Amino acid sequence: MQEHQLEIRVRYSETDAMGFLHHGNYASYFEMGRTEFLRAQGGNYRKMEESGLLFVVSRLTTHYIAPARYDDLLVLTTRIKKIGMAKLEHEYEIHRDGELLTRAESVLACVDRNGKIQRIPEEFVKRN
Amino acid sequence: MQEHQLEIRVRYSETDAMGFLHHGNYASYFEMGRTEFLRAQGGNYRKMEESGLLFVVSRLTTHYIAPARYDDLLVLTTRIKKIGMAKLEHEYEIHRDGELLTRAESVLACVDRNGKIQRIPEEFVKRN
Amino acid sequence: MQEHQLEIRVRYSETDAMGFLHHGNYASYFEMGRTEFLRAQGGNYRKMEESGLLFVVSRLTTHYIAPARYDDLLVLTTRIKKIGMAKLEHEYEIHRDGELLTRAESVLACVDRNGKIQRIPEEFVKRN
Amino acid sequence: MQEHQLEIRVRYSETDAMGFLHHGNYASYFEMGRTEFLRAQGGNYRKMEESGLLFVVSRLTTHYIAPARYDDLLVLTTRIKKIGMAKLEHEYEIHRDGELLTRAESVLACVDRNGKIQRIPEEFVKRN
Repeated sequence: MQEHQLEIRVRYSETDAMGFLHHGNYASYFEMGRTEFLRAQGGNYRKMEESGLLFVVSRLTTHYIAPARYDDLLVLTTRIKKIGMAKLEHEYEIHRDGELLTRAESVLACVDRNGKIQRIPEEFVKRN
Repeated sequence: MQEHQLEIRVRYSETDAMGFLHHGNYASYFEMGRTEFLRAQGGNYRKMEESGLLFVVSRLTTHYIAPARYDDLLVLTTRIKKIGMAKLEHEYEIHRDGELLTRAESVLACVDRNGKIQRIPEEFVKRN
Repeated sequence: MQEHQLEIRVRYSETDAMGFLHHGNYASYFEMGRTEFLRAQGGNYRKMEESGLLFVVSRLTTHYIAPARYDDLLVLTTRIKKIGMAKLEHEYEIHRDGELLTRAESVLACVDRNGKIQRIPEEFVKRN
Repeated sequence: MQEHQLEIRVRYSETDAMGFLHHGNYASYFEMGRTEFLRAQGGNYRKMEESGLLFVVSRLTTHYIAPARYDDLLVLTTRIKKIGMAKLEHEYEIHRDGELLTRAESVLACVDRNGKIQRIPEEFVKRN
């Protein structure tokens, strides 16, 4: 499975004075997408992290095409684009009723508990 | 010193679709008040926490009297109301241009790294 | 219906350096509880707000009994305790696997677009 | 003036379970940088917005080089890179004690209250 979809309802606390979902909140949506994608594959990010396998965001680019509002029901699509030795690339799209609102790409680095870059384990690679 | 004042500028990201500072964000303001109060007394919450002395919020009551808006310059007053064996009580007030917007009270519990209640050290008590 | 239950998964972005769900984030959970409770009754908070019927939080008390962590699946119970002329009182409980983590009470005031207190409409009262 | 510097103290509520400033919070820091840059030039973003001149983020790329922690005192440098007809490009750097932690670039679009693209006024262009 190379793609995962997650429904997210925009919270009131996530809106801003312009009446829109504040642009800073999308990062947490993408993170939820990665968490649920991994769970759908039989993995568990919390357990991975407890075992010393951590992923930190090293780059995130977000393209804001159209705004979302309070109570909108969004569909977040998360895709794994590339699995490198120690890096993981994702793509994201957010749609509302079929309309594309947001596109994004991230690069995660695989690190140990001390933040040292480590190789992504075979088990993780094979799952994808 | 039993009272401390801190200026806080309301961020755009902290507002909501009603145009106001979202009510959930005040908790982080009160936390900033406690951090800066302790620093003004010569203490340092980060170092305390690294040494195994942690304070967790066990109760927080906030009275929202009038709303704040983006870019408002607020004055947060933080007071220590009571220091018990293992509990710490604070009071807070937020004013804008002399008008009282918010009042709050919190109870913190002193715990160790495992979350077990511990006695507040003499050194901390004497400082206040 | 005087009670509503909602499952909430704790997001990574909602945790803090102590490893717990940060105490300031519960306010947005309670707000989600109110939104979904109203939806389950056939109402819609966004439409209500667009029609000029707004509810603002005037008091919130939260009792933090035990911490929640990243990826915990919480069950939020929202209850309407009292409907006054212009005020609405709710109670909340958060459980994880049957263990009570958090209790809270809020008072909301019914206001118009200019923040003026208004009477809660009959239609809203009858629904509850 | 084409560059502005702002000190930002990392809040406890902004950290995550890894012990770091959560990557999603940088967007609000950059926004603060733009607000304070404009103020230093004699402008006021709130007044601009009230007058119908709004800027929305259309793209944001953040490079996370090294993490920040609770209570770190960061220095955010905000630069205007380019002023187009209806777009504004900024660059950002975050340092802690001279060490570069984060770099970012954003593109803002100038819109009216209905979200329609509008030309950036001469007065705004001349200021920079």
